[in-house]
Amino acid sequence: MKILVHTAGSDSAAWIDALNQALPEAGIDRWPAARAADADYALLWKPPPELVRDLAHAKAIFNLGAGVDSMPELSALPRDVLLVRLDDAGMAEQMIEYVLHAVIRRYREFDAYVDQQREGLWHQRSRLSKNEFTVGILGAGVLGAEVARAFVRLGFPVQVWSRTPKAISGVTSFAGPQELDSFLASTRVLVCLLPLTRETKDLLDQVRLARLPRGAYLVNVARGAVVVDADLLALIDSGHLEGATLDVFRDEPLPKAHPFWHHPRIVLTPHVSAVTRVEASVAQISAKIRRLEAGLPVTGIVDRRHGY
Amino acid sequence: MKILVHTAGSDSAAWIDALNQALPEAGIDRWPAARAADADYALLWKPPPELVRDLAHAKAIFNLGAGVDSMPELSALPRDVLLVRLDDAGMAEQMIEYVLHAVIRRYREFDAYVDQQREGLWHQRSRLSKNEFTVGILGAGVLGAEVARAFVRLGFPVQVWSRTPKAISGVTSFAGPQELDSFLASTRVLVCLLPLTRETKDLLDQVRLARLPRGAYLVNVARGAVVVDADLLALIDSGHLEGATLDVFRDEPLPKAHPFWHHPRIVLTPHVSAVTRVEASVAQISAKIRRLEAGLPVTGIVDRRHGY
Repeated sequence: MKILVHTAGSDSAAWIDALNQALPEAGIDRWPAARAADADYALLWKPPPELVRDLAHAKAIFNLGAGVDSMPELSALPRDVLLVRLDDAGMAEQMIEYVLHAVIRRYREFDAYVDQQREGLWHQRSRLSKNEFTVGILGAGVLGAEVARAFVRLGFPVQVWSRTPKAISGVTSFAGPQELDSFLASTRVLVCLLPLTRETKDLLDQVRLARLPRGAYLVNVARGAVVVDADLLALIDSGHLEGATLDVFRDEPLPKAHPFWHHPRIVLTPHVSAVTRVEASVAQISAKIRRLEAGLPVTGIVDRRHGY
Repeated sequence: MKILVHTAGSDSAAWIDALNQALPEAGIDRWPAARAADADYALLWKPPPELVRDLAHAKAIFNLGAGVDSMPELSALPRDVLLVRLDDAGMAEQMIEYVLHAVIRRYREFDAYVDQQREGLWHQRSRLSKNEFTVGILGAGVLGAEVARAFVRLGFPVQVWSRTPKAISGVTSFAGPQELDSFLASTRVLVCLLPLTRETKDLLDQVRLARLPRGAYLVNVARGAVVVDADLLALIDSGHLEGATLDVFRDEPLPKAHPFWHHPRIVLTPHVSAVTRVEASVAQISAKIRRLEAGLPVTGIVDRRHGY
């Protein structure tokens, strides 16, 4: 069994070491030393188009992240080449940390308390009503559902929106384009965890963002291109939206001249909300390779019609 | 049945309204309109000494907060006047929000990212090791145990220290003075949730704080007098401690000239981590009054020997 690895500049040696330990019977090497046409399996992050094109005989391609939007050439591959995303591999826990922090920071007004400390002001602010602080999560896959449960445990009203209805205990489910407006209208803090697909690109434009109630807040930890930057800025500047915490951007690194950098109501971080962990990912992928070799089904297969 | 209410300037009307609804058979009034000597039960927050002294014939006194250190005159009351603290009444959830935010802010280095945004710097910092980021909780009562469980769910190593050993799933328990040093030595972020008693006053002095490993961080959400301010400042300034998030202080409001206000490594808030909620508290207290009237035991009775 031949396994090809391409990690786009991140530490491929760590991936190969971990794979060698997990699958000692396999031949594992990085591209282009290993020929793509010979590979049974490939682990890829941001592969060049010529690499993907040569994988027509592979059994499965594992994407080393949650979103597969970095591989547009996949649509040209034969249907029997399985495309498999990471199910979680330690990302949910990191995502929960990031989103909990961002939402509690807003709900408990910790930025206002930073200002008060600077001014030497001792003042207990009246607490925002938690019943009115509905957390609305766009996208209810593995990560979205875990984030939803974390907010339920803290007593927040929680709702999710996804393509198809989801049953998550304590969470209101909205589904499909026809329910998006009512989902947005009842959301106080919008957490975007959508995959980037044809349907979600530019989804959060002026019209959609304006459906949020006045004073709403956006947290985007999914993909920058789901949000129309200029529309978000216009709605913050008009006072309709209170602000945003952004971890992802249409172009990364975010260009120096982009107005997000120094906007007083935007908190930004350089795509750090959840990073792929080598050990947990290799454990998951090697278990799936063993199942596939044994003719058993695996979870996380990307539906190419929907792109996630 | 006569119930006396004294809430030290906060909204006593809301308490009396809620009590009237919960216990319509009782006569409820605020002190001094209601005489203390006639009261069967008293709900108190920061009462004057002359009020407490006159409660020698009451069946029970309910303290409207988690800590009873605001009532030093209690020791003079007859032993058969029960002193009852609030078990939780919505405080644990607020405390979890506050402490999660403070610890994740430090662990995920969100203050460093604020600086990077100001400088226009796109740089993904290497992640601190979660295995080495042990959350150590001083005090494992109702609040401490709930906070511990919240960190266990997020995958942090968690340990608690209390007077007597505690069994909390996934949490290492240290107990008694003889285990305090080893607890401190293995704690990366110390969360203080201790009641203020003779034993805990000034507990976190130069000697104790120096037992924490270099780079440790303090979060105090209990009582300011557990920490010796000058010793904390000296250990931060020497570089032994990384900093502190403080919600409580020896004197409140914190005096204008106190060095905590403008210290670059101290985040402070004006005693807002968890506030008493009228509805939840009255529901709990009225249920306890009904049990006491029926001769049944109640939870939350303060042990006067230990002061909590």
